[in-house]
Amino acid sequence: MDISAVNALSYEDFVNLFGNVVEKCPIITAAVWSRRPFVGLKALEAAISEFIDDLPESGKEGILRCHPDLAGRDLQSGTLTRESREEQGRAGMDALNSVEAARMAQLNKEYKERFEFPFVICARMSDKADILRQLSERCSNQRDAERARGIEEVKKICRLRLQSLVLTDASNKL
Amino acid sequence: MDISAVNALSYEDFVNLFGNVVEKCPIITAAVWSRRPFVGLKALEAAISEFIDDLPESGKEGILRCHPDLAGRDLQSGTLTRESREEQGRAGMDALNSVEAARMAQLNKEYKERFEFPFVICARMSDKADILRQLSERCSNQRDAERARGIEEVKKICRLRLQSLVLTDASNKL
Repeated sequence: MDISAVNALSYEDFVNLFGNVVEKCPIITAAVWSRRPFVGLKALEAAISEFIDDLPESGKEGILRCHPDLAGRDLQSGTLTRESREEQGRAGMDALNSVEAARMAQLNKEYKERFEFPFVICARMSDKADILRQLSERCSNQRDAERARGIEEVKKICRLRLQSLVLTDASNKL
Repeated sequence: MDISAVNALSYEDFVNLFGNVVEKCPIITAAVWSRRPFVGLKALEAAISEFIDDLPESGKEGILRCHPDLAGRDLQSGTLTRESREEQGRAGMDALNSVEAARMAQLNKEYKERFEFPFVICARMSDKADILRQLSERCSNQRDAERARGIEEVKKICRLRLQSLVLTDASNKL
């Protein structure tokens, strides 16, 4: 799918296709549709990034809170979005042994108690050991730094989701 | 459910319960959770309203574009959110005769071509005839006025969804 095909999409098709590039935040995709035409995928990504940056800090925390825990109850109950399920699966989150699962649950809990939003990481760029290590380390950060770090991860996730939608022919589903 | 019970909810339970008071925009609910404790339901509603008002115009259009058409393809294909299905059903949108359905489809199309976002109305406060009449009238508004009008309707929908969640014991589902 080339950028001219992206630019030709109605807002409905655009949101259907790209609505979850930021997890459970189709409002962002729907807002940046107004910025068409995009000169390329990078420009679409930049528009999303700018929209996020312009939100108040509460809005950024809102984005983080729309993300599921890693290896958490949504994975267990089958209620993850398709994208999150694939990403968590690829990072081995659906195949933790009981020691790893207990450690992950404990660290997720500590993280959320400390920061009041969930630990967000671009799982596609990490493996199980790396995720556990980073979760443990990031638990000791300051809240402001961790909010900013979470948003950086949201943007990495967004970039990879955009690329995979545009490069594979996901547009066939329209 | 009283306000102290609302204020005691974790962000996860809060978003599970109130995440769709603005259609498909759980980010808004997730953001205003930071504003706890709320002195009452009105204060929660006001926090949501302020968050919406502080968004750039593109963000407000983004909210509108997260709404389904009335009697549109989501209703036909069974992909409406629970809240929208109930509201559209109560307003008779699932029981249009063929003349009404054709008229609705034509006006929705005209509206979207003109404004680049869908017609949004608090269906619970209207009936079928009233909705068709308002859709027809609003098609001739200016874009800025219509964006503001759509957002007013979003807030009415939000108020009624909040009330029905808190007053009925929807919290039982947690």
